[in-house]
Amino acid sequence: MTKRIVEKGAHKEEHLGSSAFITDIVIGMSDGLTVPFALAAGLSGAVQNNAVVITAGIAEIVAGSIAMGLGGFLAGKTEQEHFQSELKREFDEVENVPEKEKEEVKLVFAQYGINEQTQKIIADELAKDKDKWVDFMMKYELGLEKPDAHRARNSAATIGISYIVGGLIPLSAYFFTRTPFQGLLISALLTIICLFFFGYFKSKVTGQPPMKGAIKVTLIGVTAAAAAFLVAKAFNNLF
Amino acid sequence: MTKRIVEKGAHKEEHLGSSAFITDIVIGMSDGLTVPFALAAGLSGAVQNNAVVITAGIAEIVAGSIAMGLGGFLAGKTEQEHFQSELKREFDEVENVPEKEKEEVKLVFAQYGINEQTQKIIADELAKDKDKWVDFMMKYELGLEKPDAHRARNSAATIGISYIVGGLIPLSAYFFTRTPFQGLLISALLTIICLFFFGYFKSKVTGQPPMKGAIKVTLIGVTAAAAAFLVAKAFNNLF
Repeated sequence: MTKRIVEKGAHKEEHLGSSAFITDIVIGMSDGLTVPFALAAGLSGAVQNNAVVITAGIAEIVAGSIAMGLGGFLAGKTEQEHFQSELKREFDEVENVPEKEKEEVKLVFAQYGINEQTQKIIADELAKDKDKWVDFMMKYELGLEKPDAHRARNSAATIGISYIVGGLIPLSAYFFTRTPFQGLLISALLTIICLFFFGYFKSKVTGQPPMKGAIKVTLIGVTAAAAAFLVAKAFNNLF
Repeated sequence: MTKRIVEKGAHKEEHLGSSAFITDIVIGMSDGLTVPFALAAGLSGAVQNNAVVITAGIAEIVAGSIAMGLGGFLAGKTEQEHFQSELKREFDEVENVPEKEKEEVKLVFAQYGINEQTQKIIADELAKDKDKWVDFMMKYELGLEKPDAHRARNSAATIGISYIVGGLIPLSAYFFTRTPFQGLLISALLTIICLFFFGYFKSKVTGQPPMKGAIKVTLIGVTAAAAAFLVAKAFNNLF
């Protein structure tokens, strides 16, 4: 396994293949911990039977992992198609209306106070190599980076599977306890520890302050669970 | 209400204030339709009582909307802090190591085949106005756009609330039917129509082909619901 290289104190970070994989796992797991935990907590305040909590939890995990995984996969494909169609359009424009495209290059630099003469030099230089010119327009005019199709597919699968694993952690407590209330106590203990842990690593791999991130992720999970518990209990008392 | 202006056949799109608001509503609602629908469908195959489906659905909607809303809000704050700290660092660098920063500007252009002389002209021109120089580095070296704090907060709230509204649509069918099976039939009919409708608008406001988008969003919802139904039923038969 390679590992992610982060230049200390520098902006630039190099993401290597397996680090993107680790990032996806951490994101999927910390998300998977949150909603199934809160759902199970919510039901714990309203039903008397662990089997109901577990069934609902399993249904949520299946639904959530497919929504995230399939959703992510299709979003990746859409991004890919969008990039290709914009790329084709830029090539057409560079070919057919080069003067208009040169004006667009100049416009990019005009906003940074670069004088007209320099704008013209840049535009003329860029125009010498059409591939690089199009590359430049894609990135700096349109703000589009080439998406990696293979990566999008793998990423969706990894996030989906990690969501399942993450979701099974809070749910596992209900397998080994006798009442939803007991389940909730163990589940909350287990999940809060994991939320903190994964919040920490999620922030580390996404380049944010880890302690702050750990607290945020834990806070989201606990707030969601507390709210779900209170609303489900209040709602159930109406019946 | 203003409306979003999309130049037909052009790349650029102007997003006006209220259109971002509409985008958030459509995103929140189409997401809200998916998981609560699938969860309710999953439970319909496993429990005999509409009240359980409704309680679980309510718990999921509360949990999901808080996870999305609060999660989005905190992510927005993190992005804001990250931008500010990078901005400060760029200002420091431009002040203290201007030659190194000029080299970084040159590097941006070197990759597009711009010759060294022109690279130097650009770097020298940019260096005349430190504010614009830093702006340029933020956007083109680091790929960071200034995040809008106010927007992040409003966006999170809008998405969260829309998730609740979206989630109540599939759930509403269980209020007015006698058995989970009847609820599922009405819920599926209602939700598939809404998923298609919101998938269409979601794609329109995010600039993707609308019919294709409508089919994708519907497909995700139906697949998630079918899988949740089958897994929950199989799981329930084990008990």
